[in-house]
Order: sequence, then C-alpha cells, then structure tokens
Amino acid sequence: MLHNTYAGQTCSVARTLELVGERWTLLILRDAFVGVRRFDDFQRSLGIARNVLNTRLQRLVESGLLERRLYHERPARYEYRLTEMALDLWPAIVALMAFGDKYLAGPEGPPMVLVHRDCGGEMTPARICATCGAELSARDVRILPGPGAPEELRQRLTGAEAPAVATG
Amino acid sequence: MLHNTYAGQTCSVARTLELVGERWTLLILRDAFVGVRRFDDFQRSLGIARNVLNTRLQRLVESGLLERRLYHERPARYEYRLTEMALDLWPAIVALMAFGDKYLAGPEGPPMVLVHRDCGGEMTPARICATCGAELSARDVRILPGPGAPEELRQRLTGAEAPAVATG
Repeated sequence: MLHNTYAGQTCSVARTLELVGERWTLLILRDAFVGVRRFDDFQRSLGIARNVLNTRLQRLVESGLLERRLYHERPARYEYRLTEMALDLWPAIVALMAFGDKYLAGPEGPPMVLVHRDCGGEMTPARICATCGAELSARDVRILPGPGAPEELRQRLTGAEAPAVATG
Repeated sequence: MLHNTYAGQTCSVARTLELVGERWTLLILRDAFVGVRRFDDFQRSLGIARNVLNTRLQRLVESGLLERRLYHERPARYEYRLTEMALDLWPAIVALMAFGDKYLAGPEGPPMVLVHRDCGGEMTPARICATCGAELSARDVRILPGPGAPEELRQRLTGAEAPAVATG
C-alpha cells in the first residue's frame, strides 16, 4: 500500500512535503514568486486543468501560503498573493533551482537567472548578491531569462509585464 | 488533464521536482542523508510497500543520486549510498526542514536537530555551526533527537546504530 500522505513520519521535511510536495503545488508557488497572481496566468503558465488548479489554489489559501484578495469589484475578481509564511519557502525554492541549474540545465545553461533588484548583480545559490554582497530575500530579486531560456520564456520575462519576484 | 510530469516547464525547479518530487523519493534521500543504507532499513523507516521502494531506489540509482554497492557476497547483498550529486541536494533538504521546524513542528519543537560533528554546535538554517561558525556540509553533521522527537525516533537516533549524516 502506498500511503496517501506522509503521516507517521515525524520529520520536518516530511511535514513540509505534505504541505507543498503535492504535484504542481510547489510550481504554483514558484510562479507566485515570479509575480504571477491571477488564475488565468497560473493556468497559462502551468497548462493544468482549471479544476485542478482551483483545488490547489484553495488548498494553498487554507494552509496559509497564499492570500486571496479582491482586485476588481464588478464582476468580483480575485488574485493570489504570497503570505509571509510562503516567503519563508524562498530558500527551499532557490536550493531546488540551484540543483537544477547545476545538473539538469543542459549545455545551453540555466533558463532563468535571479538578479539583485538594486544593483543588477546575479544572486548566488547562497542568496547573496555576487556584485555587492547583500543578502537577498525574495523581495530583493528580479528574474531574467538565462542563456537556456526558450523564446517564449524570454518574451514572457522581458515583456511589458515582466515579473518581479514576490512584489507586493 | 493532469500532466504526468512537469514536461514543458523550462525551469530548474520543475526539473529538480521531476527528479526528486515523486512521492517518497525525497524522503528516501532524507533517510540516506541520516545514514540509512539498506533496503530493509529504508522499508522499516518509511513503511512503504517493498515493490514501491524497489522502484524508487532503482530510479534513484538510474538518475545518479544513489550508488548501489555490494556489501556481502553470499548471498549477494547491496546497500545504497548517496553520490556527490545527491550531496548537492543537502541545501534543499535543509531548507525544507527549516521551514517545517518553523511552521509545522507544533509546541513541543523540532523532532530532529543537526549538530556539527566536530564541536557539537547546532547547525543554523544557513548551514553554519552556531558555536564555531564553520560552514557545514552533509558530511560535517550528526543528527540528534530534538525536543519534539517521539520515543521511537529518540531511540533510533541515540541507539547503538545511531545514524550520522551522509557518512562514507
């Protein structure tokens, strides 16, 4: 029998995976970190069914990682913002990204790079600005296409609506 | 339709999740980090079906994260060791653990603490020894029961076979 959850595992890694390890959940948060807020934008970015996305977003709101905010009154429209709790997942997301950049990116290099919003320096895997040495939180960082970015991603990241990591 | 993989996601986070995000896979690696090496010990620790565990272990060997080594000749018995590549997942595992310790551990506190093998100082979430300031890799760290450890875990971590993180 394959357990449905990691219940019985007294371990902070298991507990965190129970919260964010469900398929797509961490990728929804990753999108939120790079500035995605609206249902249709999550849907376009992830290409998953609307009902699946809806369930995942609701669960993230219930577990305190996303906050649902009204941004338009008639008709009522909501957007999803990272909570302070979610911002504390930043080190885990950066660590997973650094591993992928090192081992899984292929010869063309990483698809995205994170740069210090103030000075433009590249962020290291230790979340330090390589140029000025500042410690960087999610709010201090912008995302840019890396050498391995396909054209579609490059356009999305440099277009008029270019995302900023975890703004607002 | 729920995709079976994160294919189409040009992102180092997605690629890493494709490798280790499968249910149980990261927990198998977590066990390997705390010194588990043998099939029966993984099975006891995780409580998953033997065929499921077998598939996961094989996949981890194929993807270069575990190495299968003969440790007994007749009958042939194998153990599983972390590769250098797997050791680079250490920051991600520590980051997930730190999040769980902060938000999901409950009033009694974290179930496990990681301490510097040389001086006994506690490791911070930044993987620094709180006592001597050394940067700590997986090989520099021992695991001890924390204030929130249930009795069974306490015994496992302090018994004769108390695990060391990522030895040998």
